[in-house]
Amino acid sequence: MTAIAPVAWDGDAVLYLDQRLLPHEVRRERARTVDDIEHAIKSLAVRGAPCIGVFGAYGIALLRQTISDEARLAAAAQRVRAARPTAVNLAWAVDRVLAAEDPLQEARAIHAEQIAVDAAIAANGLELIPKGARILTHCNTGPLATGGSGTALGVIIGAQRGGKKPRVFVDETRPLLQGSRLNYLELREAGVDAVLIVDAAAAVTMQQQHVDLVIVGADRIARNGDTANKIGTYALAILAAHHGIPFYVAAPRSTFDLTIACGTAIPIEERAAVEVASFGSSRVAPDGAAVYNPAFDVTPAHLIAAFVTECGILRPPYGESIPQLEVLRLSR
Amino acid sequence: MTAIAPVAWDGDAVLYLDQRLLPHEVRRERARTVDDIEHAIKSLAVRGAPCIGVFGAYGIALLRQTISDEARLAAAAQRVRAARPTAVNLAWAVDRVLAAEDPLQEARAIHAEQIAVDAAIAANGLELIPKGARILTHCNTGPLATGGSGTALGVIIGAQRGGKKPRVFVDETRPLLQGSRLNYLELREAGVDAVLIVDAAAAVTMQQQHVDLVIVGADRIARNGDTANKIGTYALAILAAHHGIPFYVAAPRSTFDLTIACGTAIPIEERAAVEVASFGSSRVAPDGAAVYNPAFDVTPAHLIAAFVTECGILRPPYGESIPQLEVLRLSR
Repeated sequence: MTAIAPVAWDGDAVLYLDQRLLPHEVRRERARTVDDIEHAIKSLAVRGAPCIGVFGAYGIALLRQTISDEARLAAAAQRVRAARPTAVNLAWAVDRVLAAEDPLQEARAIHAEQIAVDAAIAANGLELIPKGARILTHCNTGPLATGGSGTALGVIIGAQRGGKKPRVFVDETRPLLQGSRLNYLELREAGVDAVLIVDAAAAVTMQQQHVDLVIVGADRIARNGDTANKIGTYALAILAAHHGIPFYVAAPRSTFDLTIACGTAIPIEERAAVEVASFGSSRVAPDGAAVYNPAFDVTPAHLIAAFVTECGILRPPYGESIPQLEVLRLSR
Repeated sequence: MTAIAPVAWDGDAVLYLDQRLLPHEVRRERARTVDDIEHAIKSLAVRGAPCIGVFGAYGIALLRQTISDEARLAAAAQRVRAARPTAVNLAWAVDRVLAAEDPLQEARAIHAEQIAVDAAIAANGLELIPKGARILTHCNTGPLATGGSGTALGVIIGAQRGGKKPRVFVDETRPLLQGSRLNYLELREAGVDAVLIVDAAAAVTMQQQHVDLVIVGADRIARNGDTANKIGTYALAILAAHHGIPFYVAAPRSTFDLTIACGTAIPIEERAAVEVASFGSSRVAPDGAAVYNPAFDVTPAHLIAAFVTECGILRPPYGESIPQLEVLRLSR
């Protein structure tokens, strides 16, 4: 795990790192109210589907300490649950802590489980990474994204620790640059040979740099394997298929939403125009520019070679392998 | 043509617009020496393959006025010719003005030809644009990129003037954002319904927004139709093929390099890491981040449905249609 913990319990507050300021400033904030919790999630100060789940769990534990009225608590929990619509981990964690007898213990359990789950994902993914593999990845999926050791980046960092010396091409991941700001930071901290590219250079990188595999995380996975993840993932899957490169998704069981049949049922969050029209505090596009800014896209299952989960590697046909997650348990 | 001319002759200097500052600042500069000319091209203050050609033509006319020594002139011309290696228009324009009896007249002729050529490209491209077409484009290919009315954007703006009311999705085009800074500006000025997207959103835009066609410009086209253009173009061509969307390239005959057989012979400029690691004056990635920053990529001919040139529309097999450019003349 990184030295920079994205989320922690602090007695009367949930401590979190404002990830929008990384890598240049390490600023911790304290969320003490439902407003604080909702703002931290909506603003992407806390981000990464599993990490939002852990943060939401601690958040609900806090609200159960501070809000005694049941109707008010239910309304507050609904605000947290709805703070981001695409990832499924948040609603799942909120509901677990709401229903628990000891909310703080439940939140701590969710966090501890995430750490164990991430370790199992990293271990299970190892077999997919050849020695000296050249890997392309997108968005941030390391410790900052999960509160554990990460999903896709956890697999990569695990491969590095296992002596496989991967070389990793890191998509910068516009508009919010989780790749250049966060993934690159975490890879370098782990001693991985990492090279930053603009998202539009992924295709030529596959063509010219002998990429062996693509691995990414996920925000929600339908029962048939259709996968919502950071905008740009769907393009990468198509480009990988075109170049004959296997495309893998690393995600915990909690990211699979077995209640939905396929990707068209996943709500896709559209975010503000300013994320695209500006860059940090610099205006880029002409004032008033119209923008289409979906935060996620859905990659159809047929473009995905395998899922790496804490329960093992799932292969097609996903109609058979994914429903088994309901009975599978942590494999290590 | 836009009200903002990117290049103009000014007696003892070549006037140019510093396009790096657009859309927020309109600053004109005067190039008076080979240092000035080389700097304007290398820094991308003047950009767009045809526009660089026109600027280089005026630049050589200026140097022929100011440098009498033949060896010094040849060395200066070589510096201008080599300022950017991928586009072919620059070397072609430099050589024409070097060999001309009246250099200024030749430079003016190149500029006037570009204007006529662009008008013919726009007219010829009209038949490819259905009424109400939804179009996706990349990088800047309007008047700022050519000194005329543009290539791909010239076709789109021509369709707007012809009452076809296209809707255009504009890739922002990282790292230097020619899409959000320049293309969006030119489309809005022409009254075109334009929507800005990040480059990584092109695939989901094709999937969700019913894109009818993709049209882009080019920096160099080999005899077999392989096309070098702004980084990200190759990805778009693959994504278009995956979605069954025709992918068109609009370019003047001067962009075709009939001396090279295929795309592997086109030199691809790699630019500085800082373009990716920073954004304007803001540092993004951790200090010292390794970067792979090719400025262009090469789209194989088989992904291109047609070329729009001033001589007409070229269709596959390109091994037959492209060599005819040597005998074809302006069609209008």
